[in-house]
Amino acid sequence: MAGGKAKRGIPSKVDDFNAWYPFIVEAAELVDKRYPIKGMDVWRPYGWKAMKMIDSLTHKEMERTDHDEVNFPLLIPENLLEKENALVARLKRAREEGVDPDELRDHVEEGGFKKEVYWVKHAGENDLDIPMFLRPTSETAMYTMFPLWIRSHKDLPLKVYQMVNTFRYETKQTRSFIRVREIHFFEAHTAHKDEDCASRQIGQDLEIVDNIMHELCLPVIKAKRPIWDTFPGAWYTIGIDAIMPNGRTLQVASCHHYRDQWAKAFDLTYENLEAEQEYCHQTTYGMSERLLGAIVGMHGDDNGLIMPPSIAPYQIVICPLIRKNSEVDTISKSREIASILRNSGLRVKVDERDIHAGQKYFDWEIKGVPLRLDIGPRDIENKSVYAALRTGGKRPLTMENIVENCTEVLSEISEVLRLRASEHCNNIIQTITDLNSIEDGKIYEMAFDGTDSHAETIERTTGLSFLGDATEPYAEERKCFMSGKPTTRKVLLSKSY
Amino acid sequence: MAGGKAKRGIPSKVDDFNAWYPFIVEAAELVDKRYPIKGMDVWRPYGWKAMKMIDSLTHKEMERTDHDEVNFPLLIPENLLEKENALVARLKRAREEGVDPDELRDHVEEGGFKKEVYWVKHAGENDLDIPMFLRPTSETAMYTMFPLWIRSHKDLPLKVYQMVNTFRYETKQTRSFIRVREIHFFEAHTAHKDEDCASRQIGQDLEIVDNIMHELCLPVIKAKRPIWDTFPGAWYTIGIDAIMPNGRTLQVASCHHYRDQWAKAFDLTYENLEAEQEYCHQTTYGMSERLLGAIVGMHGDDNGLIMPPSIAPYQIVICPLIRKNSEVDTISKSREIASILRNSGLRVKVDERDIHAGQKYFDWEIKGVPLRLDIGPRDIENKSVYAALRTGGKRPLTMENIVENCTEVLSEISEVLRLRASEHCNNIIQTITDLNSIEDGKIYEMAFDGTDSHAETIERTTGLSFLGDATEPYAEERKCFMSGKPTTRKVLLSKSY
Repeated sequence: MAGGKAKRGIPSKVDDFNAWYPFIVEAAELVDKRYPIKGMDVWRPYGWKAMKMIDSLTHKEMERTDHDEVNFPLLIPENLLEKENALVARLKRAREEGVDPDELRDHVEEGGFKKEVYWVKHAGENDLDIPMFLRPTSETAMYTMFPLWIRSHKDLPLKVYQMVNTFRYETKQTRSFIRVREIHFFEAHTAHKDEDCASRQIGQDLEIVDNIMHELCLPVIKAKRPIWDTFPGAWYTIGIDAIMPNGRTLQVASCHHYRDQWAKAFDLTYENLEAEQEYCHQTTYGMSERLLGAIVGMHGDDNGLIMPPSIAPYQIVICPLIRKNSEVDTISKSREIASILRNSGLRVKVDERDIHAGQKYFDWEIKGVPLRLDIGPRDIENKSVYAALRTGGKRPLTMENIVENCTEVLSEISEVLRLRASEHCNNIIQTITDLNSIEDGKIYEMAFDGTDSHAETIERTTGLSFLGDATEPYAEERKCFMSGKPTTRKVLLSKSY
Repeated sequence: MAGGKAKRGIPSKVDDFNAWYPFIVEAAELVDKRYPIKGMDVWRPYGWKAMKMIDSLTHKEMERTDHDEVNFPLLIPENLLEKENALVARLKRAREEGVDPDELRDHVEEGGFKKEVYWVKHAGENDLDIPMFLRPTSETAMYTMFPLWIRSHKDLPLKVYQMVNTFRYETKQTRSFIRVREIHFFEAHTAHKDEDCASRQIGQDLEIVDNIMHELCLPVIKAKRPIWDTFPGAWYTIGIDAIMPNGRTLQVASCHHYRDQWAKAFDLTYENLEAEQEYCHQTTYGMSERLLGAIVGMHGDDNGLIMPPSIAPYQIVICPLIRKNSEVDTISKSREIASILRNSGLRVKVDERDIHAGQKYFDWEIKGVPLRLDIGPRDIENKSVYAALRTGGKRPLTMENIVENCTEVLSEISEVLRLRASEHCNNIIQTITDLNSIEDGKIYEMAFDGTDSHAETIERTTGLSFLGDATEPYAEERKCFMSGKPTTRKVLLSKSY
C-alpha cells in the first residue's frame, strides 16, 4: 500500500527523490531514455497516452474559450530571430536608461540575447542561403503571418494555439519532462485591439490554468515574475509553478502580456473604427510536458505513479482471479463489466494474463492506475467486485450499479489526491522570519515592497530565487520585510528547477 | 451549382487544374503559403481540422488492429544514417551481382544513397560533435530502440505507430500537401517472428487502406512497385495511388515488407521457443497529408472544395435567413436545431453573420461543407428546413426527425462522391493498345510479364512510369503485351506526382 517500504528496487520517494523520479519514469514505461541523443527521450505508449489525455483537457479549454488550432512550420529563418533580438535589446536598454522603448526605435543594436537554438544551415549537400533554426517557441514565426491575417478591428481578437515539438539546446543536466531538448509544447497566441482586452485575456488564461490544474489535482503558485525574470519582449510575465516533493518549484506554464511591443517590431496593426491604424496588443500562454513531470512528482509514492483519474490512460484495471479447475468464468465476467464501464465513457483495461495476481498488482500500481477491480469466483457469487484504490483502501462494490460505484470512487480518489497535494504544499510554504535560517525544501512567502537591491540581498543571503508577486496579494496590509513600509504585496521565494 | 462557370475568380478545374488547385487550397483557408520558407505552409484552423479528422480515422484503425502510439525524437544522429546507407548499398550490389545480400555482409561500402535531409550541425554557438538530421522517416530512429524492447517471442508482434512532422529537402517545385518540405506524416512499424507473419501484416495494412479510402470516398490503385522503385532496404513495396483529375497519380500511402533485412543491419533478434536467436521480420506502413491533397483534387469543383462527410470539419452549416422586422426568430431556431444535431454527434456550424445570404453560401461552398440548411420564417412555419447538398440538389427536410434526415442526406452525399470518383477513374484507366498513341491524362493497364529491358522500352516510348503490379491481377490469363507469353499479371502505367 501507499507509503510502504521500497519494493523490488524502487528507491524511496521521501528519502531520495532524485533517484525515485527517473526510476519511476522508466519503470512505469512513460519514456525510454536510451535513445542516442541526451535529453531526447522516446515516448512509450503509456506515457504518450497520458500526455495526450493532458492535451485533450487543454483542447477542451481552448474550444470553450474560442481559440482556433493552427500548426506552424518548425523551421524559422534567421532574419526573424534578428528582429526579435533587436526588440529585446531595445527593451533592455530602455529599462536600463529609464526611457520609453519607442524613443530607441531607430537606435537598435544587436541583442546580446543568445538563443539556445539548434541551427539548420545545410540540406542535402548544399549550404542554405538563409540559415534556419528549430523553433524554441513560435512568436517570430506567428507574428510574421499575423499582419497578413489582421486588417481591421473586425479581425480581432485573433486567438490561436498549437501543440507542437519545440527545441532548446540545454547544456544543463537533462531530466525527463522537466528539462529536455525536444519539448512537447502548447502555445496560445492572441492579438487584441488594446491593452485592456489583452489584460482580460491574461485573466482568462489564469482561469484556464485553474480548470486544468483542478483536473490534474495539482496546486500551483501563480506569480508575476520580477522584471529580471520577465520573458524577453514581454511587458510582464506570470509564471505558474507546481511544487515538487523536494520543495523545489517547477514552472509548468506561463502567460505573457506583450502590450504592443512585439506588434511594433513586426508591424502588426489594424484599422480601428475611426479608420486609423493602431498597433495590436498581444499575449501568449504556454504549457509543456512539464505538467506530466509535476504529476509524476507530486502524486507518486513508493509503489509507483498515481495517475489522476482525469488523465489516467486506464482509470480502471480489472483483474480476473484465474483459478484452474474453477467452473466460474471470471474472464467473461470481467469483460462484461469492462464493457458496461466503457459504454459509460470510462477507460478500462482487463488484465487477462495468466500470471500471479501479485505480479499484476505490482505492474498496475507502478503505472498508477487509480482503481483496480478484482473479480474472483466468490465475488461473482456475491454479485460484487473487490475494489482496491491506488490512494489506499479496499472495499467491495456491488455489480448492479457498477458505473455509479466506480465513478464515485474515482471522484473520491481525485479528492484524496487534491487534499494530499495541498497539505503537502501548505507544509512547504512558510512565512519568512529570518533570512539566515532558511530550511532546505521549503518555499517562503513575505510581504515585500523593497527595491531591486533589497531583492538581490535576499536572493544572495537565502540562496533562493524570487518567483515574484503572488497573483492573490495579502488581504490586509503588512509591513515589508525589508523596508518596513506597509504593503499587500506577497512575494514568493523558492529553489526552482 | 457544381460544374457551373468559374465564379468570382475561381479558375476552372477541368480547364486549368494547375491553377485551380493552389487557388482553392488558399481560398478555402486550408493553409497559408506566404510563410517565408518555400514548401513549408502554415496550417490554418480549417485545414488543420480537416487533417485531424483524417488522422482520427487512422487512430481508430490503429486501435482496432492493436497498434500502440509512440512518439520518437525528431533528430537522428548521423551514424545511424550510415547504417542505413550500408544496408542499401549492400542490397543494391547484391541485386546487381545476383547474389545473396548476406554474402556481402562484410563487404559493405558507403552507399551512394544520398538522403535529401536537413542537417543540424550547430546548436547555440557550438559545433555539434555528432551531426544530426531531421527525420525524413523513422526506420533508423526506431530500429535503434527495438532491440531494447524485443527479447523473446513473447514480445512479438511489436506494432507501433506515430503521427509526426517529417522533413524532405525538396528541390522540385513544391505544392501544398502534395510536395512539401515539412510533411505531416503517419508511420506504422511492426516486427514479427517470421516472413509469413510480416506478410499477414501487409495484408492487414491493405485492409486498413481500404477502410480509410472508403471513408474518404477515394478510389485508389494498389500496386506492387517494380524493383527499381522499391523503397531502399525493402524486399518489396506496395504503393497506394490516388488519381487526380488531370490523370496523374499521387502516391498517398505505401507499405513495405522488409523481411529480415533491416533486422540484420540493426541486430534485431528474439529468442524463439527453442531458445535460439532469430532475426525479426519487419514491415512499415506510411501515409501523409497527401491524403488531403487527393481529397481536394478529386472531389472539388468550380465552386470550391467538397469535403467527404466523414472528415468535414463541419458536416452541416445552418444559415438562418435574417429578415429585419420579421417576428420569427430564425437564429434561435437555428441554434436549437444545431444543438439537436450536435447531441447526436454531428459537426455543425451556425452562421449568424449579418451579411447577404449569397455571401454565406459562397463562403461555405468554397470550404466544401457537404450540407447546408437554410432556415427562414416560412420554413419554421412549415416545420421544415431547406437543405442544399454540396454535391447538387435541394429539398425540404422535416424538422421532426431532423437527425435521421440529415444523416441520410450525408450518406447520400458520400455515395455520390464515391460514384463520381469511380466513374472518373474508370474513364481514366484504359487498356493499352498502342505504345505510340498515348493520350495525355490517361492511366494505362496491360498484361505484362516482360523483362526489365521491356519495361524500359515501354517507359521510354510512352513517357509513363510503371506503377507496378496491381494487387488484384487479371482473373484469367492474357497475353503479355511485349512477350506474348500468357500471364495474369496486370501492370499499371501513369504520369505521377
